[in-house]
Amino acid sequence: MSEEKEREFKLSCPLPPGSHPHVLMAHGGGGKLMGDLIEQLFLPAFENEYLEERHDGAVVECGGRRIAFSTDSYVVNPLFFPGGDIGSLAVFGTVNDLAMCGARPLYLSCGLILEEGLAMETLSRIVRSMREAAREAGVRLVTGDTKVVDRGKGDGLFINTAGIGLVESTTPVAPGSIRPGDAVLVSGDIGRHGMAVMAVREGLEFESAIESDSGCVAHMVLDLLGAGIQVHCLRDLTRGGLASALVEIAEAAHRPIEIDEAAVPVIDQVRGACEILGLDPHYVANEGRFIAFVPPDQAEAALRIMKSHPHGGQANRIGEVGQSESATVTARSPLGTRRVIDRLSGEQLPRIC
Amino acid sequence: MSEEKEREFKLSCPLPPGSHPHVLMAHGGGGKLMGDLIEQLFLPAFENEYLEERHDGAVVECGGRRIAFSTDSYVVNPLFFPGGDIGSLAVFGTVNDLAMCGARPLYLSCGLILEEGLAMETLSRIVRSMREAAREAGVRLVTGDTKVVDRGKGDGLFINTAGIGLVESTTPVAPGSIRPGDAVLVSGDIGRHGMAVMAVREGLEFESAIESDSGCVAHMVLDLLGAGIQVHCLRDLTRGGLASALVEIAEAAHRPIEIDEAAVPVIDQVRGACEILGLDPHYVANEGRFIAFVPPDQAEAALRIMKSHPHGGQANRIGEVGQSESATVTARSPLGTRRVIDRLSGEQLPRIC
Repeated sequence: MSEEKEREFKLSCPLPPGSHPHVLMAHGGGGKLMGDLIEQLFLPAFENEYLEERHDGAVVECGGRRIAFSTDSYVVNPLFFPGGDIGSLAVFGTVNDLAMCGARPLYLSCGLILEEGLAMETLSRIVRSMREAAREAGVRLVTGDTKVVDRGKGDGLFINTAGIGLVESTTPVAPGSIRPGDAVLVSGDIGRHGMAVMAVREGLEFESAIESDSGCVAHMVLDLLGAGIQVHCLRDLTRGGLASALVEIAEAAHRPIEIDEAAVPVIDQVRGACEILGLDPHYVANEGRFIAFVPPDQAEAALRIMKSHPHGGQANRIGEVGQSESATVTARSPLGTRRVIDRLSGEQLPRIC
Repeated sequence: MSEEKEREFKLSCPLPPGSHPHVLMAHGGGGKLMGDLIEQLFLPAFENEYLEERHDGAVVECGGRRIAFSTDSYVVNPLFFPGGDIGSLAVFGTVNDLAMCGARPLYLSCGLILEEGLAMETLSRIVRSMREAAREAGVRLVTGDTKVVDRGKGDGLFINTAGIGLVESTTPVAPGSIRPGDAVLVSGDIGRHGMAVMAVREGLEFESAIESDSGCVAHMVLDLLGAGIQVHCLRDLTRGGLASALVEIAEAAHRPIEIDEAAVPVIDQVRGACEILGLDPHYVANEGRFIAFVPPDQAEAALRIMKSHPHGGQANRIGEVGQSESATVTARSPLGTRRVIDRLSGEQLPRIC
């Protein structure tokens, strides 16, 4: 069978071997099942070099310019949580995805799916939040669409944003650009967004509420690029958290990554909440954090720039890229032991973004 | 109160005077209520010249290039209907919106919101349909996102697509460009998409099923531009149908439009189904039809090009732009009487796209 025919065959076979006959919550979780869906269904259907990159967004050529293009839908429950809401999340999320391509975010689209009966005041609050977030991020919301579905066929509202930006990095910001020895930097403490949402949902009470880290990281990225830091790869730590981002990059780059657990910043409240719920903060979603791969001799300069930003106070160097061609991610514990970091099969926390 | 403060005030006032306290199905219908939502909530929040255009998509400047950018979410029920499905609809819909900006569609994003329990085979069929539609339209789906919501919090699947294209028209394709005397051309017979979906939903049986007109109109538009037709304005006839498109353009251009009802192509089956359901085909949604405003001396040449396309066999000249500054749309009946065409308050047919 020719390669083309084989693809056709795979595609016309509705259920890849071993796949589930129905969609599970875990298919949206950023873990193994979601990876399977992408590998077995989406990539063969839309085969092109952009999707093959498996990046947060695509960098496409448009009239001789390199344009970053990205989209995300937001279905977070509840709509409002400490430190943010679905509106600001939807703006920052896509802006951050564009920044992860080494691009300056410029324009956003917004598609709203409203459930009949949603309070107009709720919609108004969320729209105002989107407006403020767009101002902070320096992007303009230029086109949109609103659909309404019957009561019981949605959940208040869902938001899709897509965004376009102009690539400012002169070299590709992608897993393929990372080099042995590269330093791995994290832009701040991890796990806050997921735990902020879970705490509301589970009715957990702490001395003070955990605030989501939801925020715009584009200015930080543009400052790194503007200072001449050779940023090899960027990835925001959304669904699946730090651990999944590291595994995805290691696999795409065919390089090992080792991190030092003690260097990964986690605030006490998040650590405590994770312990109560039996969660590993390395897998918890963030909405204003990213990792950057930079040459080791530029790590200090990059960290200084990150720390100068309001969201970057806890930025830290957490690991390095190894020499071999094994794509494993390992974590050194404070006791000196090593463990392999792998993808989760589903997600710890559904509907976190 | 300064203008800025006044806007702030309006925005911080959650419920504009006279607005409904909750979202109704009609807020998504392309009629008066949807117009109110846009005027009172979205435009003041995101004020910029792109949204003010009230066009199907925005034309933005990006690295010195004119890029068209558009988005739509698709919530059609049922997912499959004669002549198409939600997948091909989601591709053609956004491709057509880009074409309405005078642009060559290039790249699409795709955001899926899946309901837990959706059959994987259904998803697979829809993804394959998107693939075929993207091939036909000559666009590449380059970036995507998948979310899963709990059973009972969605409706099978919703799709958002956003698209970018390169503007090929050298003059602005927008309501502001139309001129008194311009001919109004329609690219084919109207009302098929809405009636195809309704017939399935209402269990209506006709001698042969009404097939949706869902399809790609971009090639037709690019051929018009390529032939040097001075296309002043384009609008696809989706939610709200031909009538709403005409009213929106007349209002945005501050020009009257008169159409000749007898010249508007409607196939017998659609006319019959509309009579059974008490609907006016002028307001029924289409998914592969558009109107073009061109100088009267180019109307014949434009029609020849339209008719040479598979979807354009029934293209026709249906009216003209008047001289005055009143923004009314009137229809001449075959008996010579005239009636004013206005927006509907809501929508005749919910969840048609």
